[in-house]
Amino acid sequence: MISNKTLSKLRKVLDPGRIKTDAISRSAHSFDGYVVEGVPDAVVFPTKTEEVSKIMEIASMDRVPVTARGAGTNLSGGSIPLKGGLVLCLTQMNKIVEIAPADRYAIVEPGVVNADLQQALSPLNFFFPPDPSSYSVSTIGGNIAEDAGGPRCLKYGVTHDYILGLEVVLSSGKIIRLGSRNVKDVTGYRPAGLFCGSEGTLGIVTEATLKIVPMPKARRTAMICYADLDDTAKTVVSVIGVGIIPAAMELMDNTVINLIEDAMQIGLPRDVEGILLVDVDGAEESVDKELAQIVEFARANNAKEIKVANTSAESDALWKGRRSVYGVLNRLSPTTIVEDATVPVSKIPAMIRGCRGIAHKHSITLSILGHAGDGNLHPCINTDTRDKSEAHRVEEAIKEIFQLAIDLGGCLSGEHGIGLAKSPFLPMGMDTDSREFLSIIKKAIDPCNILNPGKFA
Amino acid sequence: MISNKTLSKLRKVLDPGRIKTDAISRSAHSFDGYVVEGVPDAVVFPTKTEEVSKIMEIASMDRVPVTARGAGTNLSGGSIPLKGGLVLCLTQMNKIVEIAPADRYAIVEPGVVNADLQQALSPLNFFFPPDPSSYSVSTIGGNIAEDAGGPRCLKYGVTHDYILGLEVVLSSGKIIRLGSRNVKDVTGYRPAGLFCGSEGTLGIVTEATLKIVPMPKARRTAMICYADLDDTAKTVVSVIGVGIIPAAMELMDNTVINLIEDAMQIGLPRDVEGILLVDVDGAEESVDKELAQIVEFARANNAKEIKVANTSAESDALWKGRRSVYGVLNRLSPTTIVEDATVPVSKIPAMIRGCRGIAHKHSITLSILGHAGDGNLHPCINTDTRDKSEAHRVEEAIKEIFQLAIDLGGCLSGEHGIGLAKSPFLPMGMDTDSREFLSIIKKAIDPCNILNPGKFA
Repeated sequence: MISNKTLSKLRKVLDPGRIKTDAISRSAHSFDGYVVEGVPDAVVFPTKTEEVSKIMEIASMDRVPVTARGAGTNLSGGSIPLKGGLVLCLTQMNKIVEIAPADRYAIVEPGVVNADLQQALSPLNFFFPPDPSSYSVSTIGGNIAEDAGGPRCLKYGVTHDYILGLEVVLSSGKIIRLGSRNVKDVTGYRPAGLFCGSEGTLGIVTEATLKIVPMPKARRTAMICYADLDDTAKTVVSVIGVGIIPAAMELMDNTVINLIEDAMQIGLPRDVEGILLVDVDGAEESVDKELAQIVEFARANNAKEIKVANTSAESDALWKGRRSVYGVLNRLSPTTIVEDATVPVSKIPAMIRGCRGIAHKHSITLSILGHAGDGNLHPCINTDTRDKSEAHRVEEAIKEIFQLAIDLGGCLSGEHGIGLAKSPFLPMGMDTDSREFLSIIKKAIDPCNILNPGKFA
Repeated sequence: MISNKTLSKLRKVLDPGRIKTDAISRSAHSFDGYVVEGVPDAVVFPTKTEEVSKIMEIASMDRVPVTARGAGTNLSGGSIPLKGGLVLCLTQMNKIVEIAPADRYAIVEPGVVNADLQQALSPLNFFFPPDPSSYSVSTIGGNIAEDAGGPRCLKYGVTHDYILGLEVVLSSGKIIRLGSRNVKDVTGYRPAGLFCGSEGTLGIVTEATLKIVPMPKARRTAMICYADLDDTAKTVVSVIGVGIIPAAMELMDNTVINLIEDAMQIGLPRDVEGILLVDVDGAEESVDKELAQIVEFARANNAKEIKVANTSAESDALWKGRRSVYGVLNRLSPTTIVEDATVPVSKIPAMIRGCRGIAHKHSITLSILGHAGDGNLHPCINTDTRDKSEAHRVEEAIKEIFQLAIDLGGCLSGEHGIGLAKSPFLPMGMDTDSREFLSIIKKAIDPCNILNPGKFA
């Protein structure tokens, strides 16, 4: 429990209206997109870096756990205040500080919503590539904390590829500035990257300088249907193997297709085993040619049906099902667990077959979708955590899915982070010495372990 | 001095022929591309990770400084063994372990020469983007240690953008593995990036998994000549501001142009103030259009003469002068100091004017070339370090150049690293708390300070 002494110190550095200790506020900040909950003792809403610094000074002095939080949309439990203490909610620090197209950077506060940044960049014909499914509500600070990805990260890379500089408040309250506005900068260690994906366990990002990218002039979309799921993966391997990198190559299996069709009736073919949704973007002159080559590879890999969008509206129509998929899955059962085990693309067929075998063995409901182009699969499990026997089977299945991913040269998480969901599995993906190395870093940077304690390091 | 006891321990773990203590070997490993020298007590040439691990165990036990080295081409003094001890030369670990085009990765040992990797990737129509001037001899390990850049990094980014995973031997001899083969991987902290640019002060990279990229189908080159240097920078800002990212935009000022012409007589116009050398690459259908747009911007910014290459041979001819520039500069005086202060591109005109003013003030010979497209300028100073008075003026000028870069929102190094050359200037680019943060990381990872001691952290 946070002491009254700590609370009164906080009230001296922060407008008391920005310190919430009521049950509703605490409950509202006790969960994210994962299944575990943890209730904080108080929620604070700083509005500037200096306030964050002072909050951390107090927390450090009084040894109060602090868990940073943006919109709380993450899927791995990263922002759950497992040990109580403070939730430091950064949604009020939501200014876009500067956009410099010719210099290819944007400076933002952590509470800026991803979609708001996109909207500000759009008239300048620039964009910020990371596009997590949550982009309309998730914040840049959260995207950084979880190293968020998204469909178009196939071509453009994930959040850590777009961090030029960070202002960070350390657990002591010290404010440090790492990196710069320069696309090229090799001034010593590059610890800015360290904070990306660290889920608030190393410091609080209070300002980010992000690399921005020119908007491609043109985009084309194709929906390709297959009778055999293996052929979707074979198409992906063929396309990338010859050096075509589409903006996105999304996979949906038969289960997902039928769930979408049940809910939305948008005319997806219910009898196919898999659909690849492919976006290409780039110069107006090259997108048609690239799409034609992809269609050729799809045919050579036994595609059953190919729909090509000729307008932006038609593209959006083809994407409609994919975009709605989590909502659709959530209707199916009380709990939807979206995993994101990732494998090299050449291993996708083995991964899909393996996941299905595991689901069958444990009698659980598993569907597969994901970003096939970069091997970032999302095996989705629909379940009811209140059914203890099923919950146990789900747990076993998830463990086997991760082991399979690792055995195939993959990793535990492509874009959702480690959080609580995957910390028990870290030993699968990292040997003892490498994990110890993470702990050495954590201990050096947050010696009192007050930043998001109880998480992966 | 290294003790006989340490040497005899080393002879137990490494073929004695791979341990050199003769004067010639020691002298040959006492310098790099910078002006300072430091003679090691011995040079060791391990052939595998386990040997590196055992060498580090011994060095750690006996507190012997260890400085890792590849080809020694770096320009900042990063690989100079300032405190003696061992030079750990990784050139014998030069196997390309695996290339997987569809999975977009290559696994290499640190001694693989950049050009050899390019040659292995080329038949697969893939490439590794970082292209430092030294690429024909410099090693991937060295590229990682210095976070090397190069002309085409404007479009493609620098070395740290291409690190997927690293195997690293720590100062204790422990072997850790960070990252993976997966383009998307957010398994906990991403310390792999920390080693990139760390100049061997944190660990010894013994294997790297690199992201590789499809070779663009087409390339076009234009040489654009200007009567006013400001107009070169204005063209760069216009081009990137509308979202065209050329593969390279190289700048040479009048001094550089005339030096090249003196040495090579390749027909560069001696009377222009600046030349922009522009490469665009991408789909065959789009490169001509992009180049046409760039030419239009160049004309609008008062370009005097524009030469467009129509063939790959013509492109190479236009690049000939730029590629030879360091050799040409080296003929001019006993010492050539190539700086690489970097500024946001919109600040290039101010930076160039400022550098010229500083050179004039201190009566030194300064020419300017560089990667204008990303603001990574190389002010080059021709001098003779034996002339103490001039050496002092050069020192003062360099200090002012860096201060100017920082004042313009730039940084101390775009691609050459900190090494010895820039460590005195770190306080200009980083405040005390941020520098202390680098030291915290260094101390946590290399507690006995045996890895490349005397360098920036």
